[in-house]
Amino acid sequence: MSAAELLAAIADVGRDARRGGYSRHAFDRPERELRTWFVERAQRLRLDVETDRNGNLWAWWGSPGPDAVVTGSHLDSVPGGGAFDGPLGVVSALTAVEALQEKGFRPAKPVAVVVFAEEEGGRFGVPCLGSRLLTGTIDAGRARALRDPDGVTFAEAAVAAGLDAERIGSDPERLGLVGQFVELHVEQGRGLIDLGSPVAVGSTVIAHGRWRFSFAGQGNHAGATRLGDRVDPMLPAAGTVLAVRRLAQSRDDARATVGRLVPTPGGTNVIASTVDLWLDARVPGTETPELVEEIVAAARDAAGAEGCELTVTRESYSDDVVFDEPLRRALAEWLGAPPELPTGAGHDAAILAGFVPSGMLYVRNPTGISHAPDEFAEDADVEAGARALTEVLERLSK
Amino acid sequence: MSAAELLAAIADVGRDARRGGYSRHAFDRPERELRTWFVERAQRLRLDVETDRNGNLWAWWGSPGPDAVVTGSHLDSVPGGGAFDGPLGVVSALTAVEALQEKGFRPAKPVAVVVFAEEEGGRFGVPCLGSRLLTGTIDAGRARALRDPDGVTFAEAAVAAGLDAERIGSDPERLGLVGQFVELHVEQGRGLIDLGSPVAVGSTVIAHGRWRFSFAGQGNHAGATRLGDRVDPMLPAAGTVLAVRRLAQSRDDARATVGRLVPTPGGTNVIASTVDLWLDARVPGTETPELVEEIVAAARDAAGAEGCELTVTRESYSDDVVFDEPLRRALAEWLGAPPELPTGAGHDAAILAGFVPSGMLYVRNPTGISHAPDEFAEDADVEAGARALTEVLERLSK
Repeated sequence: MSAAELLAAIADVGRDARRGGYSRHAFDRPERELRTWFVERAQRLRLDVETDRNGNLWAWWGSPGPDAVVTGSHLDSVPGGGAFDGPLGVVSALTAVEALQEKGFRPAKPVAVVVFAEEEGGRFGVPCLGSRLLTGTIDAGRARALRDPDGVTFAEAAVAAGLDAERIGSDPERLGLVGQFVELHVEQGRGLIDLGSPVAVGSTVIAHGRWRFSFAGQGNHAGATRLGDRVDPMLPAAGTVLAVRRLAQSRDDARATVGRLVPTPGGTNVIASTVDLWLDARVPGTETPELVEEIVAAARDAAGAEGCELTVTRESYSDDVVFDEPLRRALAEWLGAPPELPTGAGHDAAILAGFVPSGMLYVRNPTGISHAPDEFAEDADVEAGARALTEVLERLSK
Repeated sequence: MSAAELLAAIADVGRDARRGGYSRHAFDRPERELRTWFVERAQRLRLDVETDRNGNLWAWWGSPGPDAVVTGSHLDSVPGGGAFDGPLGVVSALTAVEALQEKGFRPAKPVAVVVFAEEEGGRFGVPCLGSRLLTGTIDAGRARALRDPDGVTFAEAAVAAGLDAERIGSDPERLGLVGQFVELHVEQGRGLIDLGSPVAVGSTVIAHGRWRFSFAGQGNHAGATRLGDRVDPMLPAAGTVLAVRRLAQSRDDARATVGRLVPTPGGTNVIASTVDLWLDARVPGTETPELVEEIVAAARDAAGAEGCELTVTRESYSDDVVFDEPLRRALAEWLGAPPELPTGAGHDAAILAGFVPSGMLYVRNPTGISHAPDEFAEDADVEAGARALTEVLERLSK
């Protein structure tokens, strides 16, 4: 089946009627349905599918072994996300294997299609959780204790999905099998729109991280409490949202966002007792922590002015990544010198890049919009991406 | 049973583990459990309980009839609310009836204990919904179509609770039975703390209303979207939160609050596509609409600066209320001239005040905190309130 046909087959899974788009989160019903679907598709290609200790799926063409050529992406989404972010890389990988099988190609190296768990951090807050656990770049104890908005821990959700909570964590033997990793992904900005090419090769990923700001005040009655008697955490939270934009604007090409903000208890006629907001900050180069320090200072000032307490927690951070230079040169040569593209989006390939030669292919997104229902790729571009990945898999594994 | 014992009997119903305190919302499981409990308690006092067409419960001592003396309050809470706001008036009414029965009192007029539905507007957004429907101060069609955060309409929830959706609305026959209405309620500010009295008589209720501000922008990827390409509704929402405080401070004794704010989709790595916030505004006298106009103007400026669309919807509004002067004088005389207290909190008694002589008794709250877990009343003050209500019921109904 073509990549576009495979995407069409899962187009009804996990639609979000309230937000629009898709909400498919690690180990929830839609994401489990997609996992089952993936296993069936892989088995039709006579791939051997296994789930690793961290909930990542591996579909092997040939016996698992060292120096494997691995490709894939993820099936989870942000809340209300698009149809392509994640699934495009998975279906393109399946299509590439099928195309190679149909032409009678026999890989000399093991080939695997991988589906990483919780890439978006949409449920437990840490993006690329599956690849971070595989590579040991997050502490297993910390990962087990991560909680979703309902208070369920990652360990509890993993056990409910059939994993062994004790075995969650660094998996050096499995990582040792990966010789090279290539991830295909929909482009998430306007980078490819004016370049006349359906496909690009990834060059760098901007440093990025997530910080939780918890403002604590005094919950009270919205009508009976005079303004002078209030300790309302919504005020410093709002001031911080404005400071995030103002301070990010002062740094070249920085991106900083508050997309999630939760007042508790959240009643219309109730002064909030606490407000939590999450900062997503990404600055090219090494300045992300500096920007965050400036934002924290502004937030502390705003909290102090209202008499609120502020707690800041770093939930994740990744330095900027430059993808493997020899692999980038090879991809460029095999694919006819497509554009090279930096990105502000994080990916599992950027996590693996710290351990094995890794690279990325991007497929043109004519809307320039991602993490939203308008995210898009033309069928012709989807097929061009799948053909490019087929070429790359054949070259790498022969 | 004493009022404190009755409160203790329901102390485990509807606890909110995440927010603290209680979350008991119209027709949800905890609120239905409280209704069942109320019916059982009323039947033990040989009261005849009926549910009116709008979901309000009426427990009659004597045959329902004109010139009835009615008392009561509500059993629903704000999200994460306290134990007293609402239930204190209901249990005090039951205790008062029991005390009068025990001393052999036979009322000359019908007496009823009422439990109003959705007083807080915690589920469907309009406070005092049950008393507004009873009195016809909200359009029945609009009320039927109100939606909770999950998209369930008030009509659907009412039908699930056994009501007839077609009959929801103004109930002049029932309202015509009410001769006088007295509501006992926990004080919700610091008003009684320094006055040396456990009980006060209500004088006025400040004008109050709720407005929904919906900011619409463009959802997108938090890392891949440059600041200059963004239309982020979180920015004008934050600006509006700050404007609310600033503009309210310029008017004497105004109270204005944003306690509920919901970004959609609400992902950490996603620029929001929409942000909804709710303004609760209350200004003594007639200036509430003027203050709201100023806030709307500031919100429009902030929305325009980011390229966002703004829609403002008034969800409820009530003019200021002065409780019935002869009833206030009588309450003061019978109760030994306790303090008179204005309030910024809305109440069903303030809705009924437009139709029948109505009054309120407040019970001292030593924390001055309400709509939050710290809301409190000492047992001795609870019993003083119940004794005062007993005295009032006897005087009014003999």
